This record gives sequence, C-alpha cells and structure tokens, in this order.
Amino acid sequence: MPDSEKSSPRVHASSSVSSAPAGPITPATRAKLLGHRGAVIWLTGLSGSGKSTLAAALETELFRVGVLPVVVDGDVLRTGLSQGLGFSDADRKENIRRAAEAALLLAETGAVAITALISPFRDDRHHIAKRCRARGVPFAEVFINAPLAACEHRDPKGLYKKVRAGLIPSFTGIDSPYEAPLAPTLELHTDRESVAQSLAKLTALTLSLARPAGTARGAGGAES
Amino acid sequence: MPDSEKSSPRVHASSSVSSAPAGPITPATRAKLLGHRGAVIWLTGLSGSGKSTLAAALETELFRVGVLPVVVDGDVLRTGLSQGLGFSDADRKENIRRAAEAALLLAETGAVAITALISPFRDDRHHIAKRCRARGVPFAEVFINAPLAACEHRDPKGLYKKVRAGLIPSFTGIDSPYEAPLAPTLELHTDRESVAQSLAKLTALTLSLARPAGTARGAGGAES
Repeated sequence: MPDSEKSSPRVHASSSVSSAPAGPITPATRAKLLGHRGAVIWLTGLSGSGKSTLAAALETELFRVGVLPVVVDGDVLRTGLSQGLGFSDADRKENIRRAAEAALLLAETGAVAITALISPFRDDRHHIAKRCRARGVPFAEVFINAPLAACEHRDPKGLYKKVRAGLIPSFTGIDSPYEAPLAPTLELHTDRESVAQSLAKLTALTLSLARPAGTARGAGGAES
Repeated sequence: MPDSEKSSPRVHASSSVSSAPAGPITPATRAKLLGHRGAVIWLTGLSGSGKSTLAAALETELFRVGVLPVVVDGDVLRTGLSQGLGFSDADRKENIRRAAEAALLLAETGAVAITALISPFRDDRHHIAKRCRARGVPFAEVFINAPLAACEHRDPKGLYKKVRAGLIPSFTGIDSPYEAPLAPTLELHTDRESVAQSLAKLTALTLSLARPAGTARGAGGAES
C-alpha cells in the first residue's frame, strides 16, 4: 500500500472506550494498559521438585492481584509447539529454546510468563536470560531446589519408578546431569519449606519485576 | 509436594489490589480481568497484499480501545521461534504451524493475536482453525485479497523484483501456488479500498469476537 493510504487508521474515534494512551505501542504503554510489565519467571529444577505446583500457585496468585499470568509447561508444550520433538539431547535443547521463545513472546505482549521445565543445562538457561535482557524483558531464574531423594520419594508422575525399572534412559538427576544454577535470582528449598512459604517469596520476586515501584497500580502487592 | 502442603497458597490476603474474580483461571475469568476475550485473527494473502500494514493498524486500533493485541509476524518469527527453518515446503509448513501454536498460546493467555503470514495452503489454514476451535479460541480467517499485479507493483520489500531476476525460487503467486480461501470470515480488497476502509471492517470483526455482546466492558467499540 502506498503511504498516502496510511492516513486516518482510527475508525473508532467515537468509541467511548479509551483506556490506553495514544502513540506507538511500547512495553511502557502496554504496562499502562495492563497495570504491570511483562516478565519471564524461569523455574528450573529436578523432576518432582515442585516446579509445576509452584507455577500453578503463582499463576493463581498473580491473577488474584490483577496481574496477567500464563504458565508455559514443558509437558503441554510437547502437544503443541514442540510436537514432533523427542528426548534426545538436541531435541530437549530445542524444546527448551522454543519454550523460551514462547515465554518471550508472551512477556513482550505484557503477560508474566512462568515456565516450568527441568532445563538442566546452564548454557541453555544463560542463553534464555541473555535473549530476554537483549529484548528488555525482565527475567528471573528461580532454582526449585529439592534433593534428588526428596524428588524421588514424591515421584508425582511415577517417572522415577520407571527410571529405576530401566524404562526411561537419560533421566535428569539419575543418568543425565542437572547443572544447578550458580547464581539464581531466587532459590526455593521445597523440601524444607511449605508451598505457602515458597510461594510468598516467589510472588514477592515476581511482583518486584512486574510492578517495580512507581509503575501503574503500583507497589501494593510486592511488599506483602 | 504432598497434597497436605498445597493449602493456603494466598499470601497476599492483605493486598488492596483485587481486580480479578476468585476461583480457577478460565478463559471467562481471563476475559473479566482484561475486559475482552482472546482470539486469533489470521491474515492470509500474497506478499505485498497489505497483511503487515493492516496487522499493525489493527494492533494500534485495538490497543486504543483497551484490547490487548499482539502481532505475530512471519519475518520476526524467523529470528526467534522459527530460527533454523528454511524455505522448503516442509520448513514453510512448520513455520506456519509454529506461528499458529504461538498465536494460540497468546490467545489462550487473553490477547488478540494477529498473524501476518502468506500461509498459502488451505490445508494448513484449515488445521489452524480446527486447533483453535478445539481449544475454544475464537478464530477468523481474513483474506487480504489484492491481485498479483497490484502486489507486484507495490513490491514493498523488493521481493518480486528479485523473483523476476531469478534470485528467489518457489515464490508464492509466481512459481508456487496461493490457494485462496474458499469461505474466509472476511475478505478485504486492499487494491480497491483504502487502509481506513479495510481497517474498519477488520476492527469490527475482531471486536465482535473479542467483545461479543454481553461481555465485560461490552460492545462499545464493535459498532462504531
């Protein structure tokens, strides 16, 4: 289309709804529309450490205080965006990369994307942090830290049992390494503290990123 | 984590911010938080037909009336989620599949995802529509219809010039087919109408999906 056709795109001048500021759509104007910024909260830890439980609890809590949340779950992703990927090293790496790109898209749209994937390798997580920072998206690496013995005892999906029976090869923490974060933004010892205790810390961190002091709808939630 | 630990996840009981309803997070409760439903607006058409122009204009317009929009652009996607994919038939198909899955995630989060990809094949678009319907996400196929001659005359990215010089093989509309939608939700003749005219129709359609009569913040925008 020639530029001359690009004038007066506003067909809703008479609309009574006008909660957004005028001008180009930037992360700042999105934050004004939503009352908070987008962010990526990256949960990493062994299978059974409590990532999905905390992700779901954080989603509920953010929603309750008026923040738009979304959980990017590794298992769910494999039925959609990562369909066709297997469990080889390369495919797991690609699965994590796609989860990160999806989280980035969601955060750039304005949502708080909470990812729940084992994501065992430092390099992968480092790359995700770098991608987010390069795009100006707040990022937190949260280490959901429970000892292998505790995770195996919980075994919420019955996976450790299958691993010990020799049914699953290359399982993180057993015969495939988990590289613990060296300097996570937050570390939660889910074997020693209750979900409520972990969630309180996780929520405070998240709100400090999504609603830093001075932004719309303000600090309310971050300090409780 | 044992179920006994899952109690009292609400650490912000004292927070003064409480704009969201209680209970599980459903598409309906997300719609209450945002004032509108998520949706996928799938723009399809030849290169140069005006998809990106209209996607950007729709994004601005939705944002102005308080609807959370996001453009999923084919070119941008290739720098992230679709990195590594080429332009073979299989790779183009996979690129479109990932764009659709990303749009679905965004719409399920509550945003109106506007996709701008040529997406030349009926089968691919049919599959996307089916995926959205299966997940309860409103979907519209919008045919951005300008004759090849008009698109080639505009040639906003200089691609047709390269094609005619033999530099780009398998270009849609030239030596690769474009399968026009048989029953699109909306058809816009961007060679005969102005951007403002096309945008008015596109906005009305989108708001009828995102804010059907009776939903929060209501119909205001849809009728103007």
